[in-house]
Amino acid sequence: MQTYNLALIGFGGVARALAEIIRDDSDHLADAVGFRMRVVAITDLNLGTLTQPDGIDLDAVLALPRGTNFAGLPGGSAEVDNEAVIRDSNAAIVVEATFTNPETGEPALSHVRWALESGKHVTTTNKGPVALAGTRLLELAAQHGRRFEFEGAVMSGTPVLRFASQMLAGNRIRGVQGILNGTTNYVLGRLADGLTLDDAVREAQELGYAEADPTADIEGSDVCLKVSILASRVMGVDIAPEAIPTEGISGITSEDIETARHNGQVWKLIGSVTRTPDGTTTARVCPIALENIHPLAGISGATNAVTFDTDLLGQVTVSGPGAGRVETAYALLSDIIAIHAQGGPAA
Amino acid sequence: MQTYNLALIGFGGVARALAEIIRDDSDHLADAVGFRMRVVAITDLNLGTLTQPDGIDLDAVLALPRGTNFAGLPGGSAEVDNEAVIRDSNAAIVVEATFTNPETGEPALSHVRWALESGKHVTTTNKGPVALAGTRLLELAAQHGRRFEFEGAVMSGTPVLRFASQMLAGNRIRGVQGILNGTTNYVLGRLADGLTLDDAVREAQELGYAEADPTADIEGSDVCLKVSILASRVMGVDIAPEAIPTEGISGITSEDIETARHNGQVWKLIGSVTRTPDGTTTARVCPIALENIHPLAGISGATNAVTFDTDLLGQVTVSGPGAGRVETAYALLSDIIAIHAQGGPAA
Repeated sequence: MQTYNLALIGFGGVARALAEIIRDDSDHLADAVGFRMRVVAITDLNLGTLTQPDGIDLDAVLALPRGTNFAGLPGGSAEVDNEAVIRDSNAAIVVEATFTNPETGEPALSHVRWALESGKHVTTTNKGPVALAGTRLLELAAQHGRRFEFEGAVMSGTPVLRFASQMLAGNRIRGVQGILNGTTNYVLGRLADGLTLDDAVREAQELGYAEADPTADIEGSDVCLKVSILASRVMGVDIAPEAIPTEGISGITSEDIETARHNGQVWKLIGSVTRTPDGTTTARVCPIALENIHPLAGISGATNAVTFDTDLLGQVTVSGPGAGRVETAYALLSDIIAIHAQGGPAA
Repeated sequence: MQTYNLALIGFGGVARALAEIIRDDSDHLADAVGFRMRVVAITDLNLGTLTQPDGIDLDAVLALPRGTNFAGLPGGSAEVDNEAVIRDSNAAIVVEATFTNPETGEPALSHVRWALESGKHVTTTNKGPVALAGTRLLELAAQHGRRFEFEGAVMSGTPVLRFASQMLAGNRIRGVQGILNGTTNYVLGRLADGLTLDDAVREAQELGYAEADPTADIEGSDVCLKVSILASRVMGVDIAPEAIPTEGISGITSEDIETARHNGQVWKLIGSVTRTPDGTTTARVCPIALENIHPLAGISGATNAVTFDTDLLGQVTVSGPGAGRVETAYALLSDIIAIHAQGGPAA
């Protein structure tokens, strides 16, 4: 059975969850997916670099007290040189899970580029490089005969991109509509329960749904990046995030909510990409009062969902988690499964 | 580009819809899925047999006045010998879409067997052979190095079986819950609107959702067969339909509906398969008053849906059509795409 060497770039919650899955569940996974995984390098801005070409002892790494760097482990160092590790390690697959600036896509964008240039497959959970340079990076991957996979960039481990390309193959996809941000969906539900926006956001923060600075959620810019990814990767049209009209939920009043309820509707923050009959494609992010029978109307709490409008099947909807460390780690795993299905790493 | 020869066994609405797709959209499909299809044989109990080994003129067949048999077409006859056509035609893939007895699985079960024995791949939309003999037929397919595909047996073209095996690969699936019958879901919605059961069923019949005899829908036996398929094909445990406790919706009273509404719940006919912590697997069909926040609570009208309970992703739900001629024809197409992806027909 093939064993794939992985380099983990960024060792936050998601990458740690993947390491735990590999450590704890490799026999089950080998049975289920037909290959094994071995981590040969880890880098993290706060923890340093760890390289063990024959396979890192994940027990030792995961047992490190929080904040203790890799310097005390064999093959460990407090220094970080991501480019050197990505280019020179014996990994076949680079797992990119850093904290990345959504405006510039960096440092993830460079990590992906270095990996592909040095003949390695890449999986990332970062929206930035996919939204800002997805087409360019996929071309680079094709040039080097490697895969660039990023299922987790839209709804964490809930399949959206591969659902469209594999489960709906043969359909013409005429449009995509989604609830793509769990924080705003949770907040909208609590507004409907009578809370103020401030109270609902505070509650979402306490539950761990919302960031300390919830602006990117509330004002729609997180959804905007995801809509840009859906436009290019599902609808085949590159639309830059700044070209997508984006309105968040902060303008929704208690009167709006009452009126919607009276009309049998419910407010949702909807990111959409629509192909009009004349063939042009438009993308948008804004709150919409959906009829109660709309497939997205019943999506409650922090759940995410996407509805595909297709020529042969009509509307098909996938819903599930849109965040979470294990859920997002599964997105990375699903990318590695896809790399394996497409012939596996030659490196 | 590879061209696959198809034999259509049964030429009702679903098979006609597939023939229309092949006739009208083959260039688009070739681009999208990487192969072409050619119908070389059609049989139908009412219409006879038509064989044209170089490819049937679908325009001529689809233009036949309703009820006119194949005898007047080149290669046509009013006689039907399905076994001879299945075994001896130059088809590589047999498309089985007959009217089949759900109790015995016949004649579909024999059609599938003859096709596999004679080295042909099979796609079917019939629940019967899958629920009653799925494991045996899959073994027969493996013996002959051919594929037996039946995505349409559960929710027509909405992907469920391949969603579980491909989109959730690597997850442990702990349970499956579904709304697997559009008629009963529509009727339950109208009961909640205040209609009587008789009136709601009559309305569903007028809209084309319900059969003239709605018993299999209302009493749950249609869902029971689908649950048996989910048990074996998703959860890996063969449970015969007759071993699944099955209760339909005819016992739900207006008081039940009022009580549910008062408690923030909604009645759904749920088919479920659950693995308990001790490792046993139980299957069941019965009405359940779901909390409004349950992922299946918002599934309205004739829509079907399945929620998978998984170890890594938690709950993931797919919803879409569960019936319809074009939608079910897409299930057949998706099976042929799967056969192609797995290496295509050697025949």
